[in-house]
Amino acid sequence: MSTIVNDIEVIKANHTKIHDIDFNNLKFGHVFSDHMLECDYKDGKWHTPKVVPYAPISLDPSAKIFHYGQSIFEGMKAYKDEDDNILLFRPLDNFKRLNISAKRLAIPELPEAFFMDGLKTLLKVDSDWIPKKEGSSLYIRPFIFATGKGFHASPADEYKFIISTAPSGAYFAGKVKVLIEEKYSRSANGGVGFAKAGGNYAGQFYPTQLAVKKGYQQVIWTDDNTHEYIEEAGAMNIFVRINDTLITGPTSDRILDGITRKSIIELAKTEGIPVEVRKITVSEVVEAAKNGTLKEMFGAGTAAVISPIAGFGYKNEDFDLPELENTFASSLKKRITDIQTNKAEDPFGWRYKV
Amino acid sequence: MSTIVNDIEVIKANHTKIHDIDFNNLKFGHVFSDHMLECDYKDGKWHTPKVVPYAPISLDPSAKIFHYGQSIFEGMKAYKDEDDNILLFRPLDNFKRLNISAKRLAIPELPEAFFMDGLKTLLKVDSDWIPKKEGSSLYIRPFIFATGKGFHASPADEYKFIISTAPSGAYFAGKVKVLIEEKYSRSANGGVGFAKAGGNYAGQFYPTQLAVKKGYQQVIWTDDNTHEYIEEAGAMNIFVRINDTLITGPTSDRILDGITRKSIIELAKTEGIPVEVRKITVSEVVEAAKNGTLKEMFGAGTAAVISPIAGFGYKNEDFDLPELENTFASSLKKRITDIQTNKAEDPFGWRYKV
Ligand SMILES: Cc1ncc(COP(=O)(O)O)c(C=O)c1O
Ligand SMILES: Cc1ncc(COP(=O)(O)O)c(C=O)c1O
Repeated sequence: MSTIVNDIEVIKANHTKIHDIDFNNLKFGHVFSDHMLECDYKDGKWHTPKVVPYAPISLDPSAKIFHYGQSIFEGMKAYKDEDDNILLFRPLDNFKRLNISAKRLAIPELPEAFFMDGLKTLLKVDSDWIPKKEGSSLYIRPFIFATGKGFHASPADEYKFIISTAPSGAYFAGKVKVLIEEKYSRSANGGVGFAKAGGNYAGQFYPTQLAVKKGYQQVIWTDDNTHEYIEEAGAMNIFVRINDTLITGPTSDRILDGITRKSIIELAKTEGIPVEVRKITVSEVVEAAKNGTLKEMFGAGTAAVISPIAGFGYKNEDFDLPELENTFASSLKKRITDIQTNKAEDPFGWRYKV
Repeated sequence: MSTIVNDIEVIKANHTKIHDIDFNNLKFGHVFSDHMLECDYKDGKWHTPKVVPYAPISLDPSAKIFHYGQSIFEGMKAYKDEDDNILLFRPLDNFKRLNISAKRLAIPELPEAFFMDGLKTLLKVDSDWIPKKEGSSLYIRPFIFATGKGFHASPADEYKFIISTAPSGAYFAGKVKVLIEEKYSRSANGGVGFAKAGGNYAGQFYPTQLAVKKGYQQVIWTDDNTHEYIEEAGAMNIFVRINDTLITGPTSDRILDGITRKSIIELAKTEGIPVEVRKITVSEVVEAAKNGTLKEMFGAGTAAVISPIAGFGYKNEDFDLPELENTFASSLKKRITDIQTNKAEDPFGWRYKV
């Protein structure tokens, strides 16, 4: 049986899995809500999406996703406020970035209405899946991949766009130690680093495994040419606080233009925190760590929100960061999550009521 | 009903599609044989492969292949000689390279027997699919992708290895014009360019589309830092002939170590052709084109075999290559295909009888 919500057809699941879920002990991205949005590109256009039960996808073995890595994704979160309003954070920015990624990966761009109406309908249908516990949220994963067939290294003629959601707890358990990378790289000049392309992530796994073996949780990527500049982490942009100035690298064709990053830059300014957007060298960070002016480092991203970095490794040396009482990280994290969850005013117009 | 061949279980398709195929007009990688090899990694190990009917694969929407690009592949060809022997070319090199790719993409390495016995069994079962027409062959596509679930940027815990085959004609129709790239890049230092990782290919599609719009068929990639050095093409290594010397760039962590490339280097030596393996600058190629010492350029790869390049574009200028009578490309192509198809002696031990 199907109904129509916001012009989108909804085919409901026969039974809900929601009672199997312990909402007080949610991991990240581990259990999936009852429904998903599904939308197909074929015959040269995107067709109207549908909300359907979350179910396996069937693909030809020659589907290009398996061979040529044509896939992109986004990461967003939905929250519920006291009055059970469903809230998003700057969703149009995710939509725009999805299409920036699409273009670079030769994937046909998606119409805005299919994304926004589809997402809103999906969230209404699965609104019971949005956790209300502090620190939890409904993680939203929009993604597009090549379903078109053939062993020929060229763009596919068919694609699938899906939005699936997962009630989630914190991304990292506890503080994070990072390794500043000297050998491996995440992206090339003129490459796809600025896109949320699947292949960017797979390439990070092996160097990250090596870092994990040495006792770190994440790698901080540096430029592939000199390894002298700090770029970003696996799924977070990086901020460094030297004395009382907050510094983050400029985005480029190698670095993702993070929505959390740019929100933090604006928030910090309104808090009177001096912010510099400029290249950061590894040596100045090491120097600042040695002379005590390095006060904080943190990662910023939708999944991890703001993740304080407890220390970093570089060239077989370990550097610990001080344990301050009042950090930029904690005050900025409180401000951004208060805006996201409707606990504070939103002078920026970032919050989006579904 | 299932039988056992080479220790591998074979589940036969109920009917064959072979009579629908026009073996005289084969495109490349477009139609697929009746069976495929399927092998799963779970519970920490690869399980014995099976030959099964070619059929769709069912995957959870959160399978990591869709999100994090964890996929690798190989490309090989099978031939039949006059006596209907099934022949491969240096298959162990493909197996080894698959595991080199696997390691870099944090995919568990595959046991040699699963690859080789699986492949041989599959080829015996589908031996009628191996074209005998000159210039045609059975293209073989071994690939591995992440089936494990979860929206978390970390290696999957489950994978699928498949070998599928496609009776194929020529990869390119006619001569190829290439554009030497000045802006976009294929791979980073310390990246995954040397691996046959899916993401390497998707990243090339958009710049290649731009080149196609300008009238070229392929892009010649240059290094991402200076764009001054010739690296390789989308699915081919590149050779340049200046006067009577054949030159090809050295492999690196940005460039695929092609099996055709290394075979050509050896063949050329036995033919008395001087071969240099060294960095090639774009400016020397342009210079040689201008002063008439650039005699040939060609791409070398399993799919395209040896593909003569008719001309190249660089900085809005077009350079045509001369049309010679007896080219290195044509004599080397004849030698390598004669070895592959058992029309000539194989002093190197490259040919492999199944
Ligand atoms: C590589 C990378 N950098 C940075 C980010 C942070 O971006 P955002 O704040 O938009 O989530 C992400 C995750 O989304 C990412 O994958
Ligand atoms: C990027 C790239 N370079 C070169 C080659 C040629 O390698 P091989 O001769 O082993 O097929 C291929 C194709 O296999 C390739 O994908």
